[in-house]
Amino acid sequence: MRFHPHTSHGKPALAVEHAGHAVDLAELDPKFPDEIDDIIAGGPKLMAEIAAKLATTKAKGHSLKTLVPRFPLARPGNVYCLGLNYAEHAKEGGHEVPTYPALFIRVRESLIAAGQPITRPKESERLDYEAELMIVIGKGGRRISEDNALDHVFGYTLFNDVSVRDYQRKTSQWTPGKNFDRTGPVGPLVVTADELPKGARGLRIMTRLNGKVMQDDNTDNMIFPVATAIATISEFITLKPGDLIATGTPQGVGHARKPPVWMRPGDTVEIEVEKVGILTNKIVDEIA
Amino acid sequence: MRFHPHTSHGKPALAVEHAGHAVDLAELDPKFPDEIDDIIAGGPKLMAEIAAKLATTKAKGHSLKTLVPRFPLARPGNVYCLGLNYAEHAKEGGHEVPTYPALFIRVRESLIAAGQPITRPKESERLDYEAELMIVIGKGGRRISEDNALDHVFGYTLFNDVSVRDYQRKTSQWTPGKNFDRTGPVGPLVVTADELPKGARGLRIMTRLNGKVMQDDNTDNMIFPVATAIATISEFITLKPGDLIATGTPQGVGHARKPPVWMRPGDTVEIEVEKVGILTNKIVDEIA
Repeated sequence: MRFHPHTSHGKPALAVEHAGHAVDLAELDPKFPDEIDDIIAGGPKLMAEIAAKLATTKAKGHSLKTLVPRFPLARPGNVYCLGLNYAEHAKEGGHEVPTYPALFIRVRESLIAAGQPITRPKESERLDYEAELMIVIGKGGRRISEDNALDHVFGYTLFNDVSVRDYQRKTSQWTPGKNFDRTGPVGPLVVTADELPKGARGLRIMTRLNGKVMQDDNTDNMIFPVATAIATISEFITLKPGDLIATGTPQGVGHARKPPVWMRPGDTVEIEVEKVGILTNKIVDEIA
Repeated sequence: MRFHPHTSHGKPALAVEHAGHAVDLAELDPKFPDEIDDIIAGGPKLMAEIAAKLATTKAKGHSLKTLVPRFPLARPGNVYCLGLNYAEHAKEGGHEVPTYPALFIRVRESLIAAGQPITRPKESERLDYEAELMIVIGKGGRRISEDNALDHVFGYTLFNDVSVRDYQRKTSQWTPGKNFDRTGPVGPLVVTADELPKGARGLRIMTRLNGKVMQDDNTDNMIFPVATAIATISEFITLKPGDLIATGTPQGVGHARKPPVWMRPGDTVEIEVEKVGILTNKIVDEIA
Protein backbone atom coordinates (compact mmCIF):
# COMPACT_ATOMS: atom_id res chain seq x y z
CA MET A 1 0.00 0.00 0.00
CA ARG A 2 0.95 3.60 -0.48
CA PHE A 3 0.22 5.55 2.70
CA HIS A 4 -0.07 9.33 2.72
CA PRO A 5 0.01 10.87 6.21
CA HIS A 6 -1.59 14.26 5.72
CA THR A 7 -3.35 17.08 7.49
CA SER A 8 -7.08 17.46 6.88
CA HIS A 9 -9.03 20.36 8.41
CA GLY A 10 -6.13 20.90 10.83
CA LYS A 11 -6.14 17.31 12.08
CA PRO A 12 -3.85 14.35 11.35
CA ALA A 13 -5.29 12.00 8.76
CA LEU A 14 -3.90 8.97 6.99
CA ALA A 15 -4.85 8.23 3.41
CA VAL A 16 -4.09 5.22 1.29
CA GLU A 17 -3.90 5.28 -2.50
CA HIS A 18 -6.81 3.53 -4.16
CA ALA A 19 -7.77 3.71 -7.82
CA GLY A 20 -5.70 6.85 -8.32
CA HIS A 21 -7.18 8.67 -5.32
CA ALA A 22 -6.35 9.10 -1.64
CA VAL A 23 -8.89 7.46 0.65
CA ASP A 24 -8.68 8.28 4.34
CA LEU A 25 -8.56 5.22 6.57
CA ALA A 26 -11.11 6.91 8.84
CA GLU A 27 -13.52 6.86 5.92
CA LEU A 28 -13.02 3.11 5.49
CA ASP A 29 -13.50 2.41 9.19
CA PRO A 30 -13.44 4.88 12.07
CA LYS A 31 -11.52 2.28 14.08
CA PHE A 32 -8.51 2.43 11.74
CA PRO A 33 -5.57 4.47 13.06
CA ASP A 34 -4.43 7.75 11.59
CA GLU A 35 -0.73 7.27 12.23
CA ILE A 36 1.74 5.03 10.39
CA ASP A 37 3.21 4.09 13.78
CA ASP A 38 -0.08 2.38 14.64
CA ILE A 39 -0.30 0.74 11.23
CA ILE A 40 3.13 -0.77 11.91
CA ALA A 41 2.02 -1.90 15.37
CA GLY A 42 -1.13 -3.46 13.92
CA GLY A 43 0.94 -5.85 11.82
CA PRO A 44 -0.30 -8.05 8.97
CA LYS A 45 -3.73 -8.50 10.57
CA LEU A 46 -4.50 -4.78 10.39
CA MET A 47 -3.08 -4.55 6.87
CA ALA A 48 -5.42 -7.36 5.80
CA GLU A 49 -8.39 -5.58 7.37
CA ILE A 50 -7.53 -2.38 5.51
CA ALA A 51 -7.13 -4.28 2.25
CA ALA A 52 -10.52 -5.96 2.75
CA LYS A 53 -12.28 -2.65 3.36
CA LEU A 54 -10.51 -1.06 0.38
CA ALA A 55 -11.64 -3.87 -1.91
CA THR A 56 -15.29 -3.08 -1.34
CA THR A 57 -15.25 0.65 -0.62
CA LYS A 58 -17.27 3.09 -2.61
CA ALA A 59 -15.38 6.06 -1.17
CA LYS A 60 -14.03 8.35 -3.84
CA GLY A 61 -11.42 9.97 -1.61
CA HIS A 62 -9.42 13.14 -2.28
CA SER A 63 -7.23 14.07 -5.16
CA LEU A 64 -3.62 13.02 -4.44
CA LYS A 65 -2.53 16.48 -5.58
CA THR A 66 -4.32 18.40 -2.85
CA LEU A 67 -2.98 16.48 0.15
CA VAL A 68 -1.04 18.53 2.69
CA PRO A 69 1.76 16.22 3.86
CA ARG A 70 2.98 16.02 7.44
CA PHE A 71 5.87 14.16 9.04
CA PRO A 72 5.24 10.50 8.16
CA LEU A 73 5.59 9.12 11.70
CA ALA A 74 4.07 10.53 14.87
CA ARG A 75 6.69 8.85 17.05
CA PRO A 76 9.75 8.27 14.88
CA GLY A 77 12.52 6.22 16.43
CA ASN A 78 16.21 6.76 15.88
CA VAL A 79 17.50 8.01 12.55
CA TYR A 80 20.55 6.07 11.38
CA CYS A 81 22.26 7.39 8.26
CA LEU A 82 24.70 5.73 5.91
CA GLY A 83 27.32 7.94 4.35
CA LEU A 84 29.30 7.16 1.21
CA ASN A 85 27.01 4.35 0.10
CA TYR A 86 27.36 4.91 -3.64
CA ALA A 87 30.88 4.42 -5.01
CA GLU A 88 30.83 7.41 -7.36
CA HIS A 89 29.68 9.69 -4.53
CA ALA A 90 32.47 8.47 -2.25
CA LYS A 91 34.96 9.23 -4.99
CA GLU A 92 33.59 12.71 -5.78
CA GLY A 93 34.08 13.63 -2.09
CA GLY A 94 37.67 12.44 -2.10
CA HIS A 95 36.97 9.28 -0.09
CA GLU A 96 38.00 5.69 -0.71
CA VAL A 97 35.19 3.28 -1.50
CA PRO A 98 34.38 1.95 1.97
CA THR A 99 34.29 -1.67 3.15
CA TYR A 100 32.04 -0.80 6.12
CA PRO A 101 29.38 1.92 5.99
CA ALA A 102 30.13 5.29 7.54
CA LEU A 103 27.24 5.67 10.01
CA PHE A 104 26.00 8.82 11.65
CA ILE A 105 22.89 9.84 13.53
CA ARG A 106 20.43 12.66 12.99
CA VAL A 107 18.20 13.92 15.78
CA ARG A 108 14.48 14.48 15.30
CA GLU A 109 14.82 18.25 15.62
CA SER A 110 16.83 18.33 12.40
CA LEU A 111 13.98 16.83 10.35
CA ILE A 112 10.94 18.33 8.63
CA ALA A 113 8.07 17.10 6.48
CA ALA A 114 7.57 17.31 2.75
CA GLY A 115 6.43 20.78 1.78
CA GLN A 116 7.91 22.49 4.82
CA PRO A 117 10.71 24.98 4.18
CA ILE A 118 14.33 23.89 4.52
CA THR A 119 15.94 26.55 6.70
CA ARG A 120 19.27 27.87 5.47
CA PRO A 121 21.04 28.84 8.70
CA LYS A 122 22.61 32.25 8.95
CA GLU A 123 25.97 30.62 9.78
CA SER A 124 26.60 29.15 6.33
CA GLU A 125 25.77 29.39 2.64
CA ARG A 126 27.06 25.87 1.95
CA LEU A 127 23.68 24.16 1.93
CA ASP A 128 23.67 20.97 -0.12
CA TYR A 129 21.04 18.40 -1.18
CA GLU A 130 21.35 14.60 -0.92
CA ALA A 131 18.70 12.34 -2.45
CA GLU A 132 18.20 9.21 -0.36
CA LEU A 133 15.90 6.24 -0.07
CA MET A 134 14.84 5.83 3.57
CA ILE A 135 13.91 2.55 5.23
CA VAL A 136 11.05 2.47 7.76
CA ILE A 137 11.64 -0.41 10.17
CA GLY A 138 8.55 -2.50 10.85
CA LYS A 139 9.88 -5.25 13.07
CA GLY A 140 12.68 -4.65 15.54
CA GLY A 141 15.57 -6.90 16.35
CA ARG A 142 19.23 -7.33 17.15
CA ARG A 143 21.80 -9.08 15.00
CA ILE A 144 19.36 -9.46 12.14
CA SER A 145 20.92 -11.58 9.41
CA GLU A 146 21.07 -10.27 5.86
CA ASP A 147 18.89 -13.20 4.84
CA ASN A 148 16.13 -12.12 7.23
CA ALA A 149 16.67 -8.36 7.06
CA LEU A 150 13.96 -7.56 4.51
CA ASP A 151 11.34 -9.11 6.81
CA HIS A 152 12.07 -6.21 9.19
CA VAL A 153 11.18 -3.50 6.65
CA PHE A 154 7.73 -1.97 6.88
CA GLY A 155 8.27 0.26 3.91
CA TYR A 156 10.20 3.06 2.31
CA THR A 157 10.05 6.82 2.16
CA LEU A 158 12.24 9.60 0.77
CA PHE A 159 14.86 11.66 2.54
CA ASN A 160 16.78 14.76 1.58
CA ASP A 161 19.87 14.55 3.81
CA VAL A 162 20.49 18.27 3.55
CA SER A 163 23.98 19.06 4.73
CA VAL A 164 25.77 22.21 5.82
CA ARG A 165 29.10 21.28 4.29
CA ASP A 166 31.49 23.52 6.18
CA TYR A 167 30.01 22.39 9.51
CA GLN A 168 30.08 18.76 8.36
CA ARG A 169 33.83 18.96 7.92
CA LYS A 170 34.81 21.00 10.97
CA THR A 171 36.08 17.75 12.51
CA SER A 172 36.09 14.08 11.49
CA GLN A 173 32.58 13.72 12.96
CA TRP A 174 29.81 14.93 10.65
CA THR A 175 27.22 15.58 13.38
CA PRO A 176 26.99 19.41 13.21
CA GLY A 177 26.65 19.64 9.42
CA LYS A 178 23.98 16.93 9.46
CA ASN A 179 21.92 18.26 12.35
CA PHE A 180 21.09 21.89 11.77
CA ASP A 181 17.55 22.55 12.92
CA ARG A 182 14.85 21.79 10.36
CA THR A 183 17.10 20.92 7.46
CA GLY A 184 16.22 17.29 6.63
CA PRO A 185 12.93 16.60 4.81
CA VAL A 186 11.28 13.17 5.10
CA GLY A 187 8.26 11.92 3.15
CA PRO A 188 5.74 12.58 1.76
CA LEU A 189 4.47 9.00 1.62
CA VAL A 190 5.40 5.59 2.96
CA VAL A 191 5.25 2.78 0.44
CA THR A 192 5.05 -0.71 1.90
CA ALA A 193 7.83 -3.06 0.94
CA ASP A 194 5.57 -5.38 -1.06
CA GLU A 195 4.90 -2.59 -3.58
CA LEU A 196 8.56 -2.41 -4.62
CA PRO A 197 11.18 -4.78 -5.98
CA LYS A 198 12.83 -6.88 -3.26
CA GLY A 199 15.08 -4.64 -1.15
CA ALA A 200 14.00 -1.62 -3.22
CA ARG A 201 16.63 -2.55 -5.83
CA GLY A 202 16.71 -1.18 -9.34
CA LEU A 203 14.95 2.11 -8.67
CA ARG A 204 15.99 5.35 -10.29
CA ILE A 205 16.95 8.01 -7.71
CA MET A 206 17.17 11.69 -8.60
CA THR A 207 17.49 15.23 -7.33
CA ARG A 208 16.14 18.19 -9.26
CA LEU A 209 17.07 21.69 -8.19
CA ASN A 210 14.72 24.27 -9.69
CA GLY A 211 13.80 21.61 -12.22
CA LYS A 212 17.38 20.81 -13.27
CA VAL A 213 18.56 17.23 -12.74
CA MET A 214 21.50 17.24 -10.29
CA GLN A 215 21.62 13.59 -9.20
CA ASP A 216 20.46 10.65 -11.34
CA ASP A 217 21.45 7.17 -10.33
CA ASN A 218 19.92 3.83 -9.38
CA THR A 219 19.48 2.12 -6.01
CA ASP A 220 21.22 -0.90 -7.55
CA ASN A 221 24.44 1.06 -7.12
CA MET A 222 24.34 1.07 -3.32
CA ILE A 223 27.55 -0.41 -1.95
CA PHE A 224 25.65 -1.62 1.13
CA PRO A 225 22.10 -2.46 0.03
CA VAL A 226 19.05 -2.36 2.29
CA ALA A 227 19.54 -5.83 3.80
CA THR A 228 23.21 -5.16 4.54
CA ALA A 229 22.41 -1.81 6.15
CA ILE A 230 19.93 -3.45 8.51
CA ALA A 231 22.30 -6.29 9.35
CA THR A 232 25.19 -3.90 9.97
CA ILE A 233 23.33 -1.50 12.26
CA SER A 234 21.51 -4.20 14.19
CA GLU A 235 24.80 -5.88 14.95
CA PHE A 236 25.50 -3.18 17.52
CA ILE A 237 22.08 -1.74 18.41
CA THR A 238 18.59 -3.17 18.75
CA LEU A 239 16.42 -1.77 15.99
CA LYS A 240 12.83 -0.87 16.90
CA PRO A 241 9.67 -0.43 14.84
CA GLY A 242 9.64 3.16 13.59
CA ASP A 243 13.41 3.51 13.41
CA LEU A 244 14.53 5.10 10.15
CA ILE A 245 17.59 4.26 8.09
CA ALA A 246 18.81 6.66 5.42
CA THR A 247 20.67 4.70 2.76
CA GLY A 248 23.07 7.31 1.43
CA THR A 249 23.18 9.52 -1.63
CA PRO A 250 24.55 9.00 -5.13
CA GLN A 251 26.99 11.20 -7.01
CA GLY A 252 26.15 14.71 -8.10
CA VAL A 253 26.00 16.63 -4.81
CA GLY A 254 26.57 20.36 -4.93
CA HIS A 255 29.84 20.57 -3.02
CA ALA A 256 31.64 18.21 -5.43
CA ARG A 257 30.75 20.31 -8.47
CA LYS A 258 33.13 22.78 -10.04
CA PRO A 259 32.17 25.41 -9.21
CA PRO A 260 30.14 24.16 -6.21
CA VAL A 261 26.36 24.56 -6.30
CA TRP A 262 24.69 25.66 -3.08
CA MET A 263 20.95 25.82 -2.47
CA ARG A 264 19.67 29.35 -1.98
CA PRO A 265 16.54 30.93 -0.60
CA GLY A 266 13.74 30.62 -3.14
CA ASP A 267 15.11 27.41 -4.63
CA THR A 268 12.89 24.35 -4.96
CA VAL A 269 14.52 20.96 -4.42
CA GLU A 270 12.87 17.69 -5.40
CA ILE A 271 14.00 14.20 -4.46
CA GLU A 272 12.49 11.41 -6.50
CA VAL A 273 12.82 7.67 -6.24
CA GLU A 274 10.96 5.63 -8.81
CA LYS A 275 7.73 4.21 -7.37
CA VAL A 276 8.33 5.93 -3.99
CA GLY A 277 7.27 9.41 -5.00
CA ILE A 278 8.62 12.94 -4.98
CA LEU A 279 9.73 14.94 -1.95
CA THR A 280 9.53 18.67 -2.63
CA ASN A 281 10.75 21.51 -0.41
CA LYS A 282 11.68 25.14 -0.78
CA ILE A 283 14.70 26.83 0.73
CA VAL A 284 14.15 29.80 3.02
CA ASP A 285 16.51 32.01 4.92
CA GLU A 286 16.02 32.27 8.64
CA ILE A 287 14.03 35.28 9.65
CA ALA A 288 16.62 37.61 11.13
CA MET B 1 20.37 19.83 45.70
CA ARG B 2 21.58 16.32 45.17
CA PHE B 3 18.83 14.22 43.61
CA HIS B 4 18.88 10.44 43.70
CA PRO B 5 16.39 8.81 41.31
CA HIS B 6 15.97 5.32 42.74
CA THR B 7 13.67 2.32 42.86
CA SER B 8 11.78 1.69 46.08
CA HIS B 9 9.56 -1.38 46.47
CA GLY B 10 9.61 -1.78 42.69
CA LYS B 11 8.41 1.76 42.01
CA PRO B 12 10.22 4.89 40.85
CA ALA B 13 11.12 7.22 43.69
CA LEU B 14 13.16 10.39 43.86
CA ALA B 15 15.22 11.17 46.93
CA VAL B 16 17.10 14.30 47.83
CA GLU B 17 20.11 14.37 50.13
CA HIS B 18 19.40 15.96 53.47
CA ALA B 19 21.56 15.85 56.58
CA GLY B 20 23.48 12.87 55.23
CA HIS B 21 20.40 10.86 54.34
CA ALA B 22 18.16 10.37 51.32
CA VAL B 23 14.67 11.76 51.82
CA ASP B 24 12.04 10.83 49.24
CA LEU B 25 10.22 13.82 47.82
CA ALA B 26 6.95 11.88 48.24
CA GLU B 27 7.62 11.86 51.96
CA LEU B 28 8.01 15.65 51.97
CA ASP B 29 4.83 16.18 50.00
CA PRO B 30 2.83 13.62 47.99
CA LYS B 31 2.35 16.31 45.31
CA PHE B 32 6.09 16.44 44.53
CA PRO B 33 7.12 14.58 41.37
CA ASP B 34 9.21 11.42 41.35
CA GLU B 35 11.07 12.16 38.12
CA ILE B 36 13.92 14.61 37.50
CA ASP B 37 12.21 15.55 34.21
CA ASP B 38 9.32 17.00 36.22
CA ILE B 39 11.65 18.73 38.65
CA ILE B 40 13.25 20.46 35.65
CA ALA B 41 9.83 21.39 34.29
CA GLY B 42 8.79 22.76 37.69
CA GLY B 43 11.56 25.35 37.56
CA PRO B 44 12.78 27.55 40.42
CA LYS B 45 9.32 27.71 42.00
CA LEU B 46 9.22 23.94 42.58
CA MET B 47 12.83 23.94 43.77
CA ALA B 48 11.95 26.61 46.33
CA GLU B 49 8.97 24.57 47.52
CA ILE B 50 11.16 21.50 47.96
CA ALA B 51 13.76 23.53 49.83
CA ALA B 52 11.09 24.95 52.13
CA LYS B 53 9.71 21.50 52.98
CA LEU B 54 13.22 20.14 53.51
CA ALA B 55 14.07 22.93 55.93
CA THR B 56 11.34 21.87 58.35
CA THR B 57 11.06 18.14 57.71
CA LYS B 58 11.45 15.61 60.48
CA ALA B 59 11.77 12.75 57.98
CA LYS B 60 14.85 10.64 58.62
CA GLY B 61 14.92 9.13 55.13
CA HIS B 62 16.95 6.16 53.93
CA SER B 63 20.63 5.47 54.11
CA LEU B 64 22.32 6.73 50.93
CA LYS B 65 24.11 3.40 50.70
CA THR B 66 21.02 1.27 50.25
CA LEU B 67 19.46 3.19 47.35
CA VAL B 68 18.92 1.20 44.16
CA PRO B 69 19.67 3.65 41.34
CA ARG B 70 17.72 3.84 38.10
CA PHE B 71 18.22 5.83 34.92
CA PRO B 72 18.24 9.47 36.09
CA LEU B 73 15.67 10.76 33.59
CA ALA B 74 12.36 9.16 32.64
CA ARG B 75 12.26 10.93 29.30
CA PRO B 76 15.85 11.80 28.37
CA GLY B 77 16.33 13.99 25.33
CA ASN B 78 19.16 13.71 22.86
CA VAL B 79 22.61 12.67 24.00
CA TYR B 80 25.33 14.84 22.49
CA CYS B 81 28.90 13.75 23.16
CA LEU B 82 32.16 15.66 22.88
CA GLY B 83 35.20 13.66 21.83
CA LEU B 84 38.81 14.69 22.34
CA ASN B 85 37.98 17.37 24.91
CA TYR B 86 41.09 16.95 27.04
CA ALA B 87 44.36 17.72 25.26
CA GLU B 88 46.33 14.82 26.72
CA HIS B 89 43.59 12.38 25.70
CA ALA B 90 43.56 13.71 22.14
CA LYS B 91 47.33 13.21 21.99
CA GLU B 92 47.26 9.68 23.43
CA GLY B 93 44.85 8.68 20.64
CA GLY B 94 47.10 10.11 17.94
CA HIS B 95 44.88 13.15 17.28
CA GLU B 96 45.77 16.82 17.01
CA VAL B 97 44.40 19.05 19.74
CA PRO B 98 41.14 20.22 18.17
CA THR B 99 39.92 23.77 17.61
CA TYR B 100 36.26 22.64 17.35
CA PRO B 101 34.85 19.76 19.36
CA ALA B 102 34.38 16.40 17.70
CA LEU B 103 30.67 15.75 18.29
CA PHE B 104 28.82 12.47 18.07
CA ILE B 105 25.46 11.18 19.20
CA ARG B 106 24.49 8.22 21.33
CA VAL B 107 21.01 6.71 21.19
CA ARG B 108 19.01 5.92 24.31
CA GLU B 109 19.25 2.18 23.72
CA SER B 110 23.01 2.34 24.27
CA LEU B 111 22.63 3.69 27.82
CA ILE B 112 22.09 2.04 31.19
CA ALA B 113 21.79 3.14 34.81
CA ALA B 114 24.33 3.01 37.60
CA GLY B 115 24.58 -0.49 38.99
CA GLN B 116 23.33 -2.19 35.84
CA PRO B 117 25.78 -4.46 34.03
CA ILE B 118 27.79 -3.14 31.08
CA THR B 119 27.34 -5.74 28.36
CA ARG B 120 30.51 -6.79 26.57
CA PRO B 121 29.25 -7.74 23.12
CA LYS B 122 30.30 -11.02 21.64
CA GLU B 123 31.72 -9.22 18.60
CA SER B 124 34.65 -7.59 20.41
CA GLU B 125 36.95 -7.78 23.41
CA ARG B 126 38.07 -4.15 22.98
CA LEU B 127 35.79 -2.69 25.63
CA ASP B 128 37.14 0.57 27.08
CA TYR B 129 36.07 2.98 29.84
CA GLU B 130 35.82 6.77 29.55
CA ALA B 131 35.13 8.90 32.64
CA GLU B 132 32.98 11.92 31.77
CA LEU B 133 31.08 14.71 33.42
CA MET B 134 27.60 14.94 31.90
CA ILE B 135 25.51 18.10 31.64
CA VAL B 136 21.74 17.89 32.18
CA ILE B 137 20.07 20.73 30.27
CA GLY B 138 17.43 22.58 32.26
CA LYS B 139 16.41 25.33 29.90
CA GLY B 140 16.36 24.86 26.16
CA GLY B 141 17.45 27.28 23.48
CA ARG B 142 19.17 27.93 20.19
CA ARG B 143 22.37 29.91 19.69
CA ILE B 144 22.92 30.22 23.40
CA SER B 145 25.87 32.53 24.04
CA GLU B 146 28.75 31.34 26.18
CA ASP B 147 27.92 34.14 28.61
CA ASN B 148 24.41 32.81 29.14
CA ALA B 149 25.13 29.11 28.71
CA LEU B 150 25.39 28.20 32.38
CA ASP B 151 21.85 29.48 32.95
CA HIS B 152 20.71 26.58 30.76
CA VAL B 153 22.24 23.89 32.99
CA PHE B 154 19.96 22.11 35.43
CA GLY B 155 22.74 20.03 36.87
CA TYR B 156 25.38 17.41 36.33
CA THR B 157 25.67 13.68 36.42
CA LEU B 158 28.31 11.09 35.55
CA PHE B 159 28.80 9.16 32.36
CA ASN B 160 30.98 6.24 31.40
CA ASP B 161 31.25 6.59 27.62
CA VAL B 162 32.11 2.92 27.20
CA SER B 163 33.52 2.34 23.74
CA VAL B 164 34.05 -0.71 21.58
CA ARG B 165 37.29 0.50 20.06
CA ASP B 166 37.54 -1.63 16.95
CA TYR B 167 33.97 -0.71 15.96
CA GLN B 168 34.65 2.95 16.77
CA ARG B 169 37.40 3.01 14.19
CA LYS B 170 35.85 0.95 11.41
CA THR B 171 35.26 4.23 9.56
CA SER B 172 35.80 7.92 10.32
CA GLN B 173 32.39 8.00 12.05
CA TRP B 174 32.47 6.67 15.61
CA THR B 175 28.74 5.76 15.80
CA PRO B 176 28.99 1.94 15.97
CA GLY B 177 31.67 1.80 18.68
CA LYS B 178 29.75 4.32 20.76
CA ASN B 179 26.31 2.75 20.43
CA PHE B 180 26.47 -0.90 21.32
CA ASP B 181 23.36 -1.85 23.26
CA ARG B 182 23.52 -1.21 26.99
CA THR B 183 27.12 -0.08 27.18
CA GLY B 184 26.94 3.51 28.49
CA PRO B 185 26.16 4.02 32.20
CA VAL B 186 24.64 7.32 33.39
CA GLY B 187 24.09 8.42 36.99
CA PRO B 188 23.58 7.63 39.79
CA LEU B 189 22.63 11.11 40.96
CA VAL B 190 21.97 14.54 39.49
CA VAL B 191 23.60 17.41 41.33
CA THR B 192 22.12 20.82 40.64
CA ALA B 193 24.49 23.40 39.21
CA ASP B 194 24.39 25.61 42.32
CA GLU B 195 26.07 22.87 44.36
CA LEU B 196 29.23 22.98 42.23
CA PRO B 197 31.80 25.57 41.19
CA LYS B 198 30.62 27.68 38.25
CA GLY B 199 30.62 25.54 35.09
CA ALA B 200 31.72 22.52 37.17
CA ARG B 201 35.33 23.71 36.88
CA GLY B 202 38.16 22.47 39.05
CA LEU B 203 36.73 19.03 39.84
CA ARG B 204 38.86 15.94 40.01
CA ILE B 205 37.70 13.28 37.52
CA MET B 206 38.76 9.64 37.80
CA THR B 207 38.25 6.09 36.61
CA ARG B 208 39.05 3.12 38.80
CA LEU B 209 39.08 -0.35 37.29
CA ASN B 210 38.89 -3.03 39.95
CA GLY B 211 40.06 -0.37 42.40
CA LYS B 212 43.09 0.70 40.37
CA VAL B 213 43.21 4.34 39.25
CA MET B 214 43.23 4.46 35.41
CA GLN B 215 42.22 8.08 34.74
CA ASP B 216 42.91 10.99 37.09
CA ASP B 217 42.53 14.51 35.80
CA ASN B 218 40.59 17.70 36.47
CA THR B 219 37.63 19.26 34.67
CA ASP B 220 39.72 22.44 34.44
CA ASN B 221 41.60 20.72 31.64
CA MET B 222 38.65 20.56 29.26
CA ILE B 223 39.56 22.22 25.96
CA PHE B 224 35.90 23.20 25.47
CA PRO B 225 34.41 23.82 28.90
CA VAL B 226 30.73 23.44 29.78
CA ALA B 227 29.64 26.88 28.54
CA THR B 228 31.49 26.45 25.24
CA ALA B 229 29.99 23.00 24.70
CA ILE B 230 26.47 24.38 25.13
CA ALA B 231 27.15 27.36 22.87
CA THR B 232 28.71 25.15 20.18
CA ILE B 233 25.93 22.55 20.04
CA SER B 234 23.10 25.06 20.26
CA GLU B 235 24.54 26.95 17.31
CA PHE B 236 23.20 24.22 15.03
CA ILE B 237 20.43 22.52 17.02
CA THR B 238 17.82 23.69 19.51
CA LEU B 239 18.62 22.23 22.92
CA LYS B 240 15.69 21.04 25.03
CA PRO B 241 15.24 20.46 28.75
CA GLY B 242 16.41 16.92 29.47
CA ASP B 243 19.02 16.84 26.71
CA LEU B 244 22.31 15.44 27.91
CA ILE B 245 25.82 16.55 26.93
CA ALA B 246 28.80 14.32 27.65
CA THR B 247 31.88 16.50 28.02
CA GLY B 248 34.63 14.10 26.95
CA THR B 249 37.18 12.00 28.77
CA PRO B 250 40.70 12.73 30.01
CA GLN B 251 43.83 10.75 29.28
CA GLY B 252 44.37 7.23 30.53
CA VAL B 253 41.91 5.21 28.46
CA GLY B 254 42.63 1.53 27.98
CA HIS B 255 43.28 1.50 24.24
CA ALA B 256 46.10 4.04 24.50
CA ARG B 257 48.01 1.98 27.08
CA LYS B 258 50.91 -0.26 26.23
CA PRO B 259 49.82 -2.97 26.31
CA PRO B 260 46.15 -1.98 25.96
CA VAL B 261 43.83 -2.63 28.89
CA TRP B 262 40.37 -3.95 28.03
CA MET B 263 37.52 -4.38 30.49
CA ARG B 264 36.55 -8.02 31.04
CA PRO B 265 33.57 -9.84 32.48
CA GLY B 266 33.69 -9.66 36.27
CA ASP B 267 35.51 -6.30 36.30
CA THR B 268 34.12 -3.39 38.29
CA VAL B 269 34.53 0.08 36.82
CA GLU B 270 33.97 3.26 38.81
CA ILE B 271 33.75 6.79 37.45
CA GLU B 272 34.14 9.53 40.02
CA VAL B 273 33.90 13.28 39.72
CA GLU B 274 34.52 15.26 42.88
CA LYS B 275 31.23 16.40 44.45
CA VAL B 276 29.16 14.63 41.74
CA GLY B 277 29.50 11.12 43.10
CA ILE B 278 30.60 7.69 41.95
CA LEU B 279 29.14 5.68 39.07
CA THR B 280 29.78 1.96 39.53
CA ASN B 281 29.07 -0.85 37.08
CA LYS B 282 30.20 -4.39 36.49
CA ILE B 283 31.10 -5.92 33.16
CA VAL B 284 29.22 -9.00 32.01
CA ASP B 285 29.43 -11.09 28.90
CA GLU B 286 26.29 -11.49 26.87
CA ILE B 287 24.45 -14.68 27.64
CA ALA B 288 25.15 -16.88 24.66
